[in-house]
Formats: sequence, structure tokens, C-alpha cells
Amino acid sequence: MKLLRDKILSEGKCLDEGILKVDAFLNHQLDPKLMEQIGEEFARRFADSGATKILTVEASGIAPALMTGLKMGLPVVFAKKQKPSTMEGMLTASVHSFTKWQAYPICISKEFLKMEDKILFIDDFLAYGNAALGIMEIVEEVGAEIVGMGFLIEKEFQNGAKFLREKGMRVESLAVIESLENHEIKFKE
Amino acid sequence: MKLLRDKILSEGKCLDEGILKVDAFLNHQLDPKLMEQIGEEFARRFADSGATKILTVEASGIAPALMTGLKMGLPVVFAKKQKPSTMEGMLTASVHSFTKWQAYPICISKEFLKMEDKILFIDDFLAYGNAALGIMEIVEEVGAEIVGMGFLIEKEFQNGAKFLREKGMRVESLAVIESLENHEIKFKE
Repeated sequence: MKLLRDKILSEGKCLDEGILKVDAFLNHQLDPKLMEQIGEEFARRFADSGATKILTVEASGIAPALMTGLKMGLPVVFAKKQKPSTMEGMLTASVHSFTKWQAYPICISKEFLKMEDKILFIDDFLAYGNAALGIMEIVEEVGAEIVGMGFLIEKEFQNGAKFLREKGMRVESLAVIESLENHEIKFKE
Repeated sequence: MKLLRDKILSEGKCLDEGILKVDAFLNHQLDPKLMEQIGEEFARRFADSGATKILTVEASGIAPALMTGLKMGLPVVFAKKQKPSTMEGMLTASVHSFTKWQAYPICISKEFLKMEDKILFIDDFLAYGNAALGIMEIVEEVGAEIVGMGFLIEKEFQNGAKFLREKGMRVESLAVIESLENHEIKFKE
């Protein structure tokens, strides 16, 4: 998606250790118009997926997932990163964070994930696929099905897409980064 | 806003101690179409505010803030509840959480909040006004201005709106709850 690649080039920053900082339009400040176009793009790519529900993880996944839900006419559920005090009957999995070098739990209420759900998982980044793996664990636990996974930015060199496709997942990434070496953003052609 | 009141009545749950649980469409599962209509309503109410930026707090504020930003053509910044590892130059304030009975920090990067900004603050709930107060502290620190505050659900009996209006804030709430006594949701007429 050219619009997203252009935005990454103009506003993204390469930090050390393969971290791409896109706080200017995705992880801290949001560009609502860009998010709407991203929602349209995911809706187009997953139009034939049969999805009945969008799943994402707070907080940065919410904006693109919401816009995808709007364009596809589907509800959106965001997994929480800690067990809320007012929530019982939780499904949980543990996710290792690449940027923070620690594990965090992801939690979804049983109320909002049912066996009959066909899940489209939307998230901001695909690095090693750890968050996606946590979601797969939870969805499997209730016997629901994942029909697709959409990511805004895939860091191909961390092999998350390869890992997920080997597990039979359909993966769509809107911008695929081949390398961040020498603090330079290099997209896959 | 009748649509929101109807949704609260049909899908909200009263817990003990004045807590209203709206996980079904706002705090865990999202209804994208409702969020879009909420964005339109805030855009209508704050059309004359002169806002240049929307501010909210992760995670539940993101959906309504994003839709308001989309309808008003403004960028959205979401304050983080913990200092991210990849973020420097942070503005912070401490907020006491009503539902969790503990304080948490809210953080905004100096990069995305400038002296010239006219801020419209959007959040899911208005209880005592603690999150709003934290935002006011941060905005004041950089010398920017808050031109309005919009909440989806105001719990009038916790006096947040009164408190904020006494501080000179313009407050708009889409659904005002007068009482949650005996686990019954009673809206203000």
C-alpha cells in the first residue's frame, strides 16, 4: 500500500535493534484519514474471507481494527494486556514483546469470543508473530477459527509471516520491510 | 444521544459501587457504526471550538477519538498509561483510577503536543474527572489550550462535569447518568 509506505518513509524513525518507530501516525499520534484508507484496504483484501468478527490487541491495534470493522460491517474486539478488575471468565495467553523484552498477558472475555466466530486478526506490526501466536492459542481454546491476519507493517527479516504461514495462516501485510540495517528503511519490492 | 442511551440500556451492566460495565460496545468489544455516529455527534457539538488536535487516553478512548478526528479532519493523540521504552521527552501526570482504586501515569510525547495546539479531549467515561485533570496538567505544562472535553458517558452523581466546569472547561456528555442505585440505570432527563 503505497500511501502507507510513503508515510513510513516520511515520518518513521529507525531506532537501534530493528525497531521502527511510527509514533507520528500509528503508535501515539493517529492519522484518522490514513486509518480509514487502511480499513478500506483490509476490507478489500479480506472481502472473501467469511470473517464475522475482527480481533486485535490494545492499544495500537484498535484504530486500524476499528476502521476495518467499519468498512466490513463487523464488530471489533480488542484483547487487553492485563486482566481488568471488572472482568470475569477470561481467556488468556502470554505474549513476548519484542520492543520491551518481556512477556505480557493478553486477555479476551469468553463473552465476546464464541466457537462459531470466524476471526480476522488485525494488528499494527508483524515482527516474530508472538502476539498472533497468543491470539491463535486463545481462539483455538474456544474452538473458533481464524480466517485471516492483517498487519500494517511487516518486518520480513524477523520471519513472522513465514512462521504464521507455516501454521496455515493467511497473512496480508500492507507494507513489508526487508531491512532496517544502518537505520535505513528498505521495503520489499 | 438517544442511540447511545439505548445501547447502554440494552447492553450495559450495573456492577457494585457505581460501576457501569459497557464491555459489549465500548471497553472490550466495539461497535464501529456506533463509534462513527458518536464521532459525528462530537464533530457537530464542537464544530465551533477551533480545535486543532484531539487528545484521548488509551485504550477505550481511542475508538471514539479516532472517529471524531476523522469527522473533524484532525489528528488524534492518545496518552499512554505507561512510559514506553522507545519514547523520550515525555510529559506525564498521575491519574487516580476510579474502577481500579490505584493511580496510573499518563504520558504524552512533547513531539505531539505543542504550545499552539487547541485541544479537544475525548474520553469514554466522566466520573470524578481525574483523567481529565491529568490531561489539563499536561496541556498546561506546554502552554497549550483545551477548547473542549467530550465524554460518551457521564456519571453525574460523581460530579466530574461540575468539577471541570468550575475550572472553566466546556464539557459535552453524550449520555448523562443520574443514578446507578439498586443496579438500575437512570438517565438524566
